Amino acid sequence: MATRRKTKAESAEHFERIMIERVIPEVDGGRFPVKRVPGETVEVEAHAFSDGHDDLLVFLLYRKAGAALWSRVPMVCNGNDEWRAAFSIKERADHEYTVEAEMDEFATWQKGLRKKQEAGQDLSVDLQIGAGILKKVAASASDEIAPKLTAWARELEASPDQARAVARALASETHALVVEGYARERFVRYPHILKVAVDRPRALFSSWYEFFPRSWGDKPGEHGSFRTCQRILPEIARMGFNVIYLPPIHPIGVAHRKGKNNSTTCLPGEPGCPWAIGSEEGGHKTIHPQLGTIEDFKAFLSKAAGLGLEVALDVAFQCSPDHPYVKAHPQWFLWRPDGTVQYAENPPKKYEDVLPINFETEDREALWQELKSVFLFWIEQGVRIFRVDNPHTKPFMFWDWVIAEIRKDHPDVIFLAEAFTRPKVMYRLAKAGFTQSYTYFTWRNNKHEFMDYMNEIAKGPVAEFFRPNFWPNTPDILVPHLQTGGRPMFIMRAVLASTLSSNWGVYGPAFELCLNEPFPGKEEYIYSEKYEIKSWDWDAPGNLKDTLALLNRIRRDNAALQETRNIRFLEVYNDQLLAYWKASSDGKNVILVVASFDPVHAQGGRMRLPLKELGLSGDAVLEVQDLLTGMRQVWRGEFADVHIDPRRMPAQVLRVEKK
Amino acid sequence: MATRRKTKAESAEHFERIMIERVIPEVDGGRFPVKRVPGETVEVEAHAFSDGHDDLLVFLLYRKAGAALWSRVPMVCNGNDEWRAAFSIKERADHEYTVEAEMDEFATWQKGLRKKQEAGQDLSVDLQIGAGILKKVAASASDEIAPKLTAWARELEASPDQARAVARALASETHALVVEGYARERFVRYPHILKVAVDRPRALFSSWYEFFPRSWGDKPGEHGSFRTCQRILPEIARMGFNVIYLPPIHPIGVAHRKGKNNSTTCLPGEPGCPWAIGSEEGGHKTIHPQLGTIEDFKAFLSKAAGLGLEVALDVAFQCSPDHPYVKAHPQWFLWRPDGTVQYAENPPKKYEDVLPINFETEDREALWQELKSVFLFWIEQGVRIFRVDNPHTKPFMFWDWVIAEIRKDHPDVIFLAEAFTRPKVMYRLAKAGFTQSYTYFTWRNNKHEFMDYMNEIAKGPVAEFFRPNFWPNTPDILVPHLQTGGRPMFIMRAVLASTLSSNWGVYGPAFELCLNEPFPGKEEYIYSEKYEIKSWDWDAPGNLKDTLALLNRIRRDNAALQETRNIRFLEVYNDQLLAYWKASSDGKNVILVVASFDPVHAQGGRMRLPLKELGLSGDAVLEVQDLLTGMRQVWRGEFADVHIDPRRMPAQVLRVEKK
Repeated sequence: MATRRKTKAESAEHFERIMIERVIPEVDGGRFPVKRVPGETVEVEAHAFSDGHDDLLVFLLYRKAGAALWSRVPMVCNGNDEWRAAFSIKERADHEYTVEAEMDEFATWQKGLRKKQEAGQDLSVDLQIGAGILKKVAASASDEIAPKLTAWARELEASPDQARAVARALASETHALVVEGYARERFVRYPHILKVAVDRPRALFSSWYEFFPRSWGDKPGEHGSFRTCQRILPEIARMGFNVIYLPPIHPIGVAHRKGKNNSTTCLPGEPGCPWAIGSEEGGHKTIHPQLGTIEDFKAFLSKAAGLGLEVALDVAFQCSPDHPYVKAHPQWFLWRPDGTVQYAENPPKKYEDVLPINFETEDREALWQELKSVFLFWIEQGVRIFRVDNPHTKPFMFWDWVIAEIRKDHPDVIFLAEAFTRPKVMYRLAKAGFTQSYTYFTWRNNKHEFMDYMNEIAKGPVAEFFRPNFWPNTPDILVPHLQTGGRPMFIMRAVLASTLSSNWGVYGPAFELCLNEPFPGKEEYIYSEKYEIKSWDWDAPGNLKDTLALLNRIRRDNAALQETRNIRFLEVYNDQLLAYWKASSDGKNVILVVASFDPVHAQGGRMRLPLKELGLSGDAVLEVQDLLTGMRQVWRGEFADVHIDPRRMPAQVLRVEKK
Repeated sequence: MATRRKTKAESAEHFERIMIERVIPEVDGGRFPVKRVPGETVEVEAHAFSDGHDDLLVFLLYRKAGAALWSRVPMVCNGNDEWRAAFSIKERADHEYTVEAEMDEFATWQKGLRKKQEAGQDLSVDLQIGAGILKKVAASASDEIAPKLTAWARELEASPDQARAVARALASETHALVVEGYARERFVRYPHILKVAVDRPRALFSSWYEFFPRSWGDKPGEHGSFRTCQRILPEIARMGFNVIYLPPIHPIGVAHRKGKNNSTTCLPGEPGCPWAIGSEEGGHKTIHPQLGTIEDFKAFLSKAAGLGLEVALDVAFQCSPDHPYVKAHPQWFLWRPDGTVQYAENPPKKYEDVLPINFETEDREALWQELKSVFLFWIEQGVRIFRVDNPHTKPFMFWDWVIAEIRKDHPDVIFLAEAFTRPKVMYRLAKAGFTQSYTYFTWRNNKHEFMDYMNEIAKGPVAEFFRPNFWPNTPDILVPHLQTGGRPMFIMRAVLASTLSSNWGVYGPAFELCLNEPFPGKEEYIYSEKYEIKSWDWDAPGNLKDTLALLNRIRRDNAALQETRNIRFLEVYNDQLLAYWKASSDGKNVILVVASFDPVHAQGGRMRLPLKELGLSGDAVLEVQDLLTGMRQVWRGEFADVHIDPRRMPAQVLRVEKK
């Protein structure tokens, strides 16, 4: 340390008087980008100060990644040496930003001059000093500016009319031109160039519907295909979803195939689990013959697209023992001393139908390239969204690499990480480039859990790179509150998922049919669709299709619900009630949600309205309409009473209009 | 980014499966050290995890700075991938630390084996896998370990008695040896080596007494000297202080000398302000003739040392217009267009008796070396503590450099930063190497302000590099609560300063005489000693000398009060009462302080005792003694009532004994 300082003291041409200590957001020292979509802003804070009492000039610099020139925005200090500015993302292109600062010698001098003028002191020497600053700036300024600065310098030092000279000196026009003239190379630059990964809008606003095509054959019990299951697409579109996500569509292994309820005994004719990928018929680039051909798949994509539905595929990098890779590339798997290949285990559980891939194989260059080609193959067929199965059991480095590789040529590809694991691991995957992430939403079930969790993932540093996708259920997860809470609980979870997070999804029709029977003692469905072909009575009484359609319509019509980081909670004096609000970035659309965690009894409470944040006085009048029921109310003042009867509707989604 | 990942994927010899994302404490990415004294520990937290479900091994590494070998401490994870360990500083030598981690393949395997054993599965293949791990580790292990690992491997794969082989496999002894055998070069190392600046103990525990020697002449009104003022040293020592700090002791300028009450008119014979340094008689390396000679000063140091008192000098890098530097090095000052030298200004105020030094001069190498030589000169005379005046008006880079330079040869030197400015600037100076810092203590005056402030400076990241020194008053500052609060307020501020912070000081005798008359409308003393020679009636009735002596004795006798970072607050249900406690690092000494902010009325309240933190049950019995009054009490259970009458004593300093 000593040496470094010594060198600086002896030789530094330019003096490091300015500290830019911290720039926020910054993910791991700038190693990873923050994430945005077009239309969003990046709000940047910098901690910048200098020794002494001089004024600082601080600028936010931003540009499209790799562009030669920076755009510059002056940053504003609201105390404690914390400076803020923002820039908005206008197109789908990655961006970069950083901060620079310089001493504002002229502003410091103006401040002194103003005070001396007020104190009636003689200003002639000070005007000469100011003229000196102007001349110094002019010397390195552009030809456009320099003559004017020089002329003003003369005015300051030679004007016979001191009052006029002072007016010129203090004019904000004078300061503005001096700032323009300051030599850019003297500015102190923050050492990191920070990155913004800009994705397409659906990265931030998406509504997912997961279903098993094989359960939608022409007749009950018959294996469905991409042709037969097209018939349910219009209804999914009517429910307002815009992504349909399919479990793996590949051939399913025969060896150790699982039967009903994950039984190790598989009866003849049982279809097996789609995640046991690969058979003699092919692997990750092949479609299960009973689902159809590539042409059928493309026709399905095209039909879906016509209805505004994108198709997301499941990418599960694991193999059934029958996968062609096992024979062709035995070195990609772990072999046991007894000559058998290592299957997946979570002792004492054995998953003999699934072989993990050994990402650390010596042959990993070939392996990784092959896995990358799986994504490219489906991209070639027209797929742009992938739900990645258990990414946390594969190396972070693989994701760092493969996502960057694919994003380079296909920046419109969206990756959803299905990692239900420890927070830091989930966040690391988001940093690796996953566009969206599954979350703990599914298990959170009381007011304070939700407030804490949203503050963790939707506010502050995590929200800069982690985009949550909220799922009330999945084929793997049937949580206790859905097992016991009945229809009101299903509605409540749908309201929460679809209004807390701008990305959400359900596994249907299990969800909208309020399916709630668990495998005894587990958080899983009994007779799970993972292991058998189901036939669904989609129009069964009590189904929630209209409710889901309404929620998705509300989301589509209200920009406030198309973001997640804009969430703010309200005080409501009842622990069974959770209240939060979101405003669109232009402030015009405001949605306030109140949800009750009690699926049985009515709950009431008083809430404190965010009048100040809405720019309103304490006696403001608000007109609110419950978008779920159409009911209108008028609220006056800071407090409003809410009453929620779960037998009618377990939540209110209120559009707030200022009067 | 893409390129970097690609390279890694293709060529990385060792796989980056482990993330060490964050190590705490770390100051600005490791640019600056944390601070400690011998006897303190460095508690390190690391956020480390990997993909997959394998066990991790995480080690804290530490060594004396520059040593070749690291000491290693296993870190322990208490959830959320956050690992902790600590090392203690045993001697005054700077240290370094970092963190490393590796996959614990053998532990992962043991875990699986244990579960399969419990499930009654056949283990023969697993034992062969375990033997393989042992052999692999043995292959790169030292000759000491390898044979044993190989023998055990044989035992696992070939023992006819499977139960015995399993016992060997699961023995913790086996795991311990494997860990020892893991190839160190495979460990992933955190990329920063972090630093600990280790100062001598007084950096953390010091009691300062500031006085003006010139006010202690033989007769009232006579200019005192280092000979005459020796007579007050025994009483300062009796009061328990261990640092005496003297305002600048150099010749005082004549030009523009200030008179009484900072008057611009100076009457003949007025002594001037000690901070207007330099006259024809000399500058920063000269002693004011009326204070005596270098020999007198050394005799004074020696007398003080005999009483356990160290002498701290004031270093104020500024000059009176008469300072020899001004003629010899005019280029070290700023000159105005009218040919006069720039004096200090805070428009409209003018400080014509003080010229700031231009640290940015072209001639700064000579200037900085000269200023460094000022420190070295006084170090040569035996001074080891410097209180630096207004360091924030000089470049951070200068302090970075000069403190490192001096600390290199004189690691026992202590620097106290007198910067009353914005928090980030004060923290930056502490990072630059200042050992201690003045604080906002002087102005904080209610319970929540204190709790917030202590949490900011004595807990968390700031406390790692910023050592507060609490002063109730200084020659520059007489705060409103001391102007009006009377003697109880002075006692209360002394109790707070001396028990909240392990470093504290007073400006005396103004403090112990409860001097409270301000210059009208200001937070300053009227007839300030800065501008005139005072004669003090040190034994005036009501003086606090015995109270200060008692407080400093309590500090000396109770290790809990010799640290600052150990503070914790207690709930007490009265906003006028502040309660906190500190325990010594061995837990043996526990001090609990209750202070009242009401200098007039008695205040009572109930507090919740930290029984859990003290390792006690909810019905524990504590015996407490108020060290200020000697009163003893016995407390039972979690709550205790306190009652404070400021007319008797505005605070309690309780020693807590577990029964």
